[in-house]
Amino acid sequence: MSSREDTIDTFLTNNQSKFIQELTELCAQPSVSARKEGVQECAALVASILARHHLDVQLIPTGGSPVVVGRASGGSPQTLLLYNHYDVQPPEPLDLWTTPPYQPTVREGALYARGAEDDKGEFIARLAALEAVRFAHDGKLPCGVTFVVEGEEEIGSPHMAEFVQGHLDLLKSQATIWEGGGISVEGNPGSVLGLRGVLSVEIAVKTMSQDAHSGSAHALPSAAWRLIRVLTSIKDEHEHILVPGFYEHAKPPTDDDLALIDARPDMETWLKETFGVSQFVNDLHGRNLDKAVFNPTCNIQGIVTGYQGQGMKTVIPARAVAKVDFRLVPDQDPKDIFAKLRHYLDQSGFADVSLTWLGAMWPFKAPADNPFVQLTAKTAEAVYGKPYEMMPLVGGSSPVYAFAKPLGNIPVVMAGTGYPNNNAHAPDEHIRLEDFHNGARHIARILDGFASLG
Amino acid sequence: MSSREDTIDTFLTNNQSKFIQELTELCAQPSVSARKEGVQECAALVASILARHHLDVQLIPTGGSPVVVGRASGGSPQTLLLYNHYDVQPPEPLDLWTTPPYQPTVREGALYARGAEDDKGEFIARLAALEAVRFAHDGKLPCGVTFVVEGEEEIGSPHMAEFVQGHLDLLKSQATIWEGGGISVEGNPGSVLGLRGVLSVEIAVKTMSQDAHSGSAHALPSAAWRLIRVLTSIKDEHEHILVPGFYEHAKPPTDDDLALIDARPDMETWLKETFGVSQFVNDLHGRNLDKAVFNPTCNIQGIVTGYQGQGMKTVIPARAVAKVDFRLVPDQDPKDIFAKLRHYLDQSGFADVSLTWLGAMWPFKAPADNPFVQLTAKTAEAVYGKPYEMMPLVGGSSPVYAFAKPLGNIPVVMAGTGYPNNNAHAPDEHIRLEDFHNGARHIARILDGFASLG
Repeated sequence: MSSREDTIDTFLTNNQSKFIQELTELCAQPSVSARKEGVQECAALVASILARHHLDVQLIPTGGSPVVVGRASGGSPQTLLLYNHYDVQPPEPLDLWTTPPYQPTVREGALYARGAEDDKGEFIARLAALEAVRFAHDGKLPCGVTFVVEGEEEIGSPHMAEFVQGHLDLLKSQATIWEGGGISVEGNPGSVLGLRGVLSVEIAVKTMSQDAHSGSAHALPSAAWRLIRVLTSIKDEHEHILVPGFYEHAKPPTDDDLALIDARPDMETWLKETFGVSQFVNDLHGRNLDKAVFNPTCNIQGIVTGYQGQGMKTVIPARAVAKVDFRLVPDQDPKDIFAKLRHYLDQSGFADVSLTWLGAMWPFKAPADNPFVQLTAKTAEAVYGKPYEMMPLVGGSSPVYAFAKPLGNIPVVMAGTGYPNNNAHAPDEHIRLEDFHNGARHIARILDGFASLG
Repeated sequence: MSSREDTIDTFLTNNQSKFIQELTELCAQPSVSARKEGVQECAALVASILARHHLDVQLIPTGGSPVVVGRASGGSPQTLLLYNHYDVQPPEPLDLWTTPPYQPTVREGALYARGAEDDKGEFIARLAALEAVRFAHDGKLPCGVTFVVEGEEEIGSPHMAEFVQGHLDLLKSQATIWEGGGISVEGNPGSVLGLRGVLSVEIAVKTMSQDAHSGSAHALPSAAWRLIRVLTSIKDEHEHILVPGFYEHAKPPTDDDLALIDARPDMETWLKETFGVSQFVNDLHGRNLDKAVFNPTCNIQGIVTGYQGQGMKTVIPARAVAKVDFRLVPDQDPKDIFAKLRHYLDQSGFADVSLTWLGAMWPFKAPADNPFVQLTAKTAEAVYGKPYEMMPLVGGSSPVYAFAKPLGNIPVVMAGTGYPNNNAHAPDEHIRLEDFHNGARHIARILDGFASLG
């Protein structure tokens, strides 16, 4: 280890409690974009935190939550863009949290809170890295940095593409570190090269002007049953999506993609233990569980219909609503899928069923041999002492697509603080302090090496 | 009109405001059996109201809500049993009420409140009839009366059969007036001769120990989708129930049954207007809508799974629950149907799916030519000045079966205060003051004529 890396690591160790305090402050502020809860307050807090770390801050309004941008110039003309988000998933169900989601609590070497990992912990770890690099370079940064922290990632980043298009000069950069990333079950660092797109819709059925007594179920039409018939018309029991043309632009995995997955650990046991699953979708096993990421999906986020309380209520529901998301593979296009779904419903006798666009992201896939990708891999292997794993495509989605192409097909990698059991999006979300530390070390090394790539 | 009938009618007119005040007091007391809300308080109030009307009152505990029994002897050894219930359906959705459900309000000639009709209004109308008959007979009743007012009708009367079996002497009577009844769309009085049974169950699916991110939907099993597959395995798109043996004991309608329905008004227009329906189940029309009551049904009362809030949440639900009721025709047996459904799920690969018995009632069908049925018809035609309509079987259920057989196959009729647009079980439930008055007149005439039947 060079003396500069030593300096960085020591700085991060000595100052960890300060950064965890900063993370605690940020996690205590709710910021649920799905219901606009605390979002404005959180944006203001993020702006003040960025300013505290000597970045020039702009709080830029969009049609939804504001985007917070923090910039600093450095010793080289190269600029690295770091993407994070300050919004979080709703914390429900609250009764499954050991400690309340907005009362950040450290126990057994981890900080528990909604957003502790996704994405507030990752954001603060990057600020820690920035401070460490500045300290190791006598108060100056070796390259320019631009933080983009948005507030609508958890609802599909509906304004991000437009925001990037409208601020190309402000965001000009030569590479991007995305949110996410971290280590695998075995502790290996890695990054994903591709992300699926997503289309979220609301499907609503109304069969009557009011609920009716279930004694009339032989005559009066049930919205609950009709919604079920709509849903089963969209996907069969083997997970095949029945909308004509749905798979038209879906690229199958290449042999290289499959080889990368075959080189990775088998996730079956971990998935079984983490989610208490006895049987997977389509009875998949072993690495086929990961390879199935190349299958687009149709997932039901939730259904609301009829009586929701205790006991029973003998009613026929007049209304039924399902929220559904489709995860899309390259080169499927959410707009195309939405149009095909609407057309299919119309053709299938469901013209009366309403279909509402809730949000979408496009799929993305990056080249594995880019120098910045290679820098990320090399520095990660140094930090974690383990081989770097690349995943050609993962199941989730992010607005990577909205940055990479408009900014000149720049490389995008993930380098984060995650580990597989962190309960992101679920009760008892947490970040381990060790992962926070190593994530910061990794980002610091990328910042350190980035200037010399240019 | 005889002078005694004249006396009765005048008494009811002169004292209506007093009885409506009594109904207001009763409706202001919540009594939602589905969640045990105010049930004990309401039982105590019913007991005090019965005592106020000079009945000997017993408040008898059961495994659930208490049953309130009020008795009075009369000039003949004949005793008439009157069944009512003091529990109500949950008032939700609250935002669809014009005035709050527990703030009884009179407007445009009707009293609006949860329970105004079903079944508190009907109960108070019977007490009004009792007072009127007593007044017309110089303070004495011509026959004995026994009021049985239970508190679990809206959750399927789970303790009523056992209660009757345990109190055969207390309940000894020669005929029963059930809850329900009233007039049709055209203003014709009538009664139903048969009621369907009902089996309510909860079907619960658990596929994982916790919700997961929808980015894993290609691998992790969704409880929402699995519940949908369970439900579609139970009933096909043409309303045919697929559980083997389900129709084994279902009696088809007789020619007489169908003739009674053919003699009745066509309900299609009323149903269309009341429920805003454009297409009925199986595209039924005209009197086939009523004849379909001989088809048992499988209705979804409600589904709870996944994210229930605003916006969206990209999760795969780990749990999904449906409450389902089956309406059963004579001679289907809920216990037999429950066993067949469990067996079918086990055989269909759904052995992991939990099936919970929520409640049941057995079907019932009474003879049309019984003298008490004929008395009810004749007095109704006198009160309403219109022909009496008999319905061989209606879609709803009640614990009639639990009384009729154990008490010696006594006749059971309905004679009530209902009209089709009263919104029972729905927001803005109400009772028209005119229906309250005529319902009381009818009951008074039955009481008056009952002694001479014996």
